[in-house]
Amino acid sequence: MRARDLAAPFPTVGLDTSALEAARLLAGSDLPGLIVVDRRGHPTTVLAGTQVLRMAIPRYCIDDPALARVIDEDHADRFLSDLADRTVEQCLPDKHGELPVVDPKATVLEIAALMARARSPLVAVVGGGDMLGAITLDALLDRMLGT
Amino acid sequence: MRARDLAAPFPTVGLDTSALEAARLLAGSDLPGLIVVDRRGHPTTVLAGTQVLRMAIPRYCIDDPALARVIDEDHADRFLSDLADRTVEQCLPDKHGELPVVDPKATVLEIAALMARARSPLVAVVGGGDMLGAITLDALLDRMLGT
Repeated sequence: MRARDLAAPFPTVGLDTSALEAARLLAGSDLPGLIVVDRRGHPTTVLAGTQVLRMAIPRYCIDDPALARVIDEDHADRFLSDLADRTVEQCLPDKHGELPVVDPKATVLEIAALMARARSPLVAVVGGGDMLGAITLDALLDRMLGT
Repeated sequence: MRARDLAAPFPTVGLDTSALEAARLLAGSDLPGLIVVDRRGHPTTVLAGTQVLRMAIPRYCIDDPALARVIDEDHADRFLSDLADRTVEQCLPDKHGELPVVDPKATVLEIAALMARARSPLVAVVGGGDMLGAITLDALLDRMLGT
C-alpha cells in the first residue's frame, strides 16, 4: 500500500484565513490538525492540533505551568478570543520542524515513521507539486488493522 | 471553567494489555491517544496517537527517512504485526516527557498550555490519586468555541 492509495480529500486553510476561523474548523470537523496552503494551493505548513492550540496561548504560559496558574478563571476562559484579530500567518511559529509531507509512492511504514518523528497525526500527500490529499493517523491505522 | 467540568469518561489500557489490542482501540474508537493505567487504575502514561504508532516502528526508520524507504512494500504493509507479541509495557518508550495530567481545578488555559507543551491532544484529570476522566483537545475546543 502506498500514500496515493490512502490520500483522501482534506480541508485546507490559507495564510490569510482568520486564526479563529481555523480553530473553529479544527474543532467543528474533528480533524487532527490543519493544512495551511499558499495561494497556489501548495501545502506550506501542516499543523498538528496541539500546534494550532499553541497559536492562542501566551508563550510564557506554555513555558512555565506556574505562570499559567496565576491567570484567573475568567481570563483563562477567554484565551481563544485573542485569535479573532489575527490571521493564520501571524500566528504561525517562527521555526518549523520537518514538514509532514510525503510522496505518493511512500509506503505505510514511511508514512508512519514520519508521523512518529514529526509527532504529527496528519501528513499531506504531494506529487508533481500538487496536493493530492492527506492521510490521518486514524485512517492509516483503520486501513492497517481493518477496524 | 475548570478541568473537573470538562473531564469525561475515557477508555484505558493496562500495562499488560497487548500492544496490538491497544492500537486497535486507538483506531476503532477515533481516540487521539491512549491512557495507560497501573493495577490501581492510576494513569502511569498518557500516549498521544503518534507515540502509540512509534511503539510499532523500528527505531532506525524513525531516525532516518532513507532507511524507512528501503523496506519493500510487502514488509512495510506488515509493520504493525510486530505488536501482536508484545504488551503495552514492553513497547513504552524508556524516557517519558511531562505526564499530561491535570488537577481538577486546572483552568482551560492551564490545560491548553499543557497540551501545547507536551504536544498531547489528550490529558488525564486526576484528583486525590484517582482518575476522574480525560479531556481531549477536540472537546476543549468544542466547549470553548461552541462548535
